[in-house]
Amino acid sequence: MAAGTPSLDRVVALLRRLPGIGPRSAQRIALDLLLRKRALMPQLAEALAAAHRSVRHCSRCNNLCEDELCSICNSGRRDRGLLCIVESPADLLAIEDSGSYVGEYFVLMGHLSPLDGIGPDALHLDLLEQRLQETGLQEVIFATNSTLEGEATAQFVAALVPEGIRVTRIARGIPMGGELEYLDRSTLGRAVQGRGTLDF
Amino acid sequence: MAAGTPSLDRVVALLRRLPGIGPRSAQRIALDLLLRKRALMPQLAEALAAAHRSVRHCSRCNNLCEDELCSICNSGRRDRGLLCIVESPADLLAIEDSGSYVGEYFVLMGHLSPLDGIGPDALHLDLLEQRLQETGLQEVIFATNSTLEGEATAQFVAALVPEGIRVTRIARGIPMGGELEYLDRSTLGRAVQGRGTLDF
Repeated sequence: MAAGTPSLDRVVALLRRLPGIGPRSAQRIALDLLLRKRALMPQLAEALAAAHRSVRHCSRCNNLCEDELCSICNSGRRDRGLLCIVESPADLLAIEDSGSYVGEYFVLMGHLSPLDGIGPDALHLDLLEQRLQETGLQEVIFATNSTLEGEATAQFVAALVPEGIRVTRIARGIPMGGELEYLDRSTLGRAVQGRGTLDF
Repeated sequence: MAAGTPSLDRVVALLRRLPGIGPRSAQRIALDLLLRKRALMPQLAEALAAAHRSVRHCSRCNNLCEDELCSICNSGRRDRGLLCIVESPADLLAIEDSGSYVGEYFVLMGHLSPLDGIGPDALHLDLLEQRLQETGLQEVIFATNSTLEGEATAQFVAALVPEGIRVTRIARGIPMGGELEYLDRSTLGRAVQGRGTLDF
């Protein structure tokens, strides 16, 4: 990609390091900012600096937050008997978005991946063990990804859950709107294995 | 999309206003920055602020630059007899990238679009007329987009070129690697009309 001005080139080079942004879209974004959305530039600069300064991890559930505790741990209206374990804040947001869950979370910030050198140390398990000791916990729900790494992580972490606490996994089956004809064999196999009583 | 922290939400909201970035990718970018590329955040903030401060328009060709003149007008190694008229800095960069042009440019920063209320006033034509008066100019090459607006803009602006200066348009035809079977009729029609002597 040919050169613009030095500071334009610098913006383009940094934008290219963001996920899903290639050279063309980095240039398009930078020029769009400079030519049409100039007022957005100092706003975005300030927002990035502010988030960099203030976003940290919740000292209880490891989710992103700006205070000692995140808004979920702080809410007082969540069911503390339910703990859902997810790999990332994006997964937590997706479950929140579904409006189907009233319990609390723990965010591992990753998954086991021996080939990439990611072992148990990366998963903040000491913080999780503290949470697992809190009184009143009744069920730990694993909502790690349905991938090799996600499953292995769930298996490994499940071993830390104290006796007497129910351990579950979110259901695997055919997605809503999914057509059987086009589903992969393993999803369909799981869906048949995990069949439940018919209810609407 | 559910909420993260306030300053994370602000970054996501601003990112969504950039071209080609939807709600999912805005969230993905913001989380990627916070979780994996934290050092990039102040760098990007500073780069945006710096570009916002220093990028302006070349007083001769209207391209983006950081001094009185852009690097092309300033170079001394470009053919001042050739002037290529483009709609945007991205178009200029694309032509530079092709390595096929040694002349100078004028950047209109738009095209005529009466339906959107964009008239000749938006095209910096006073600056262009100054450039057209410079001695030694031999050819004005129109490289506006091959759209209705681009063609109309070229036609309108061509009327400003003084007598005795050659006025040309970049070739329209089949793109490199293009298969005739899949080309639209108007491109193919243009290509037949504009046929040239066989040479390799």
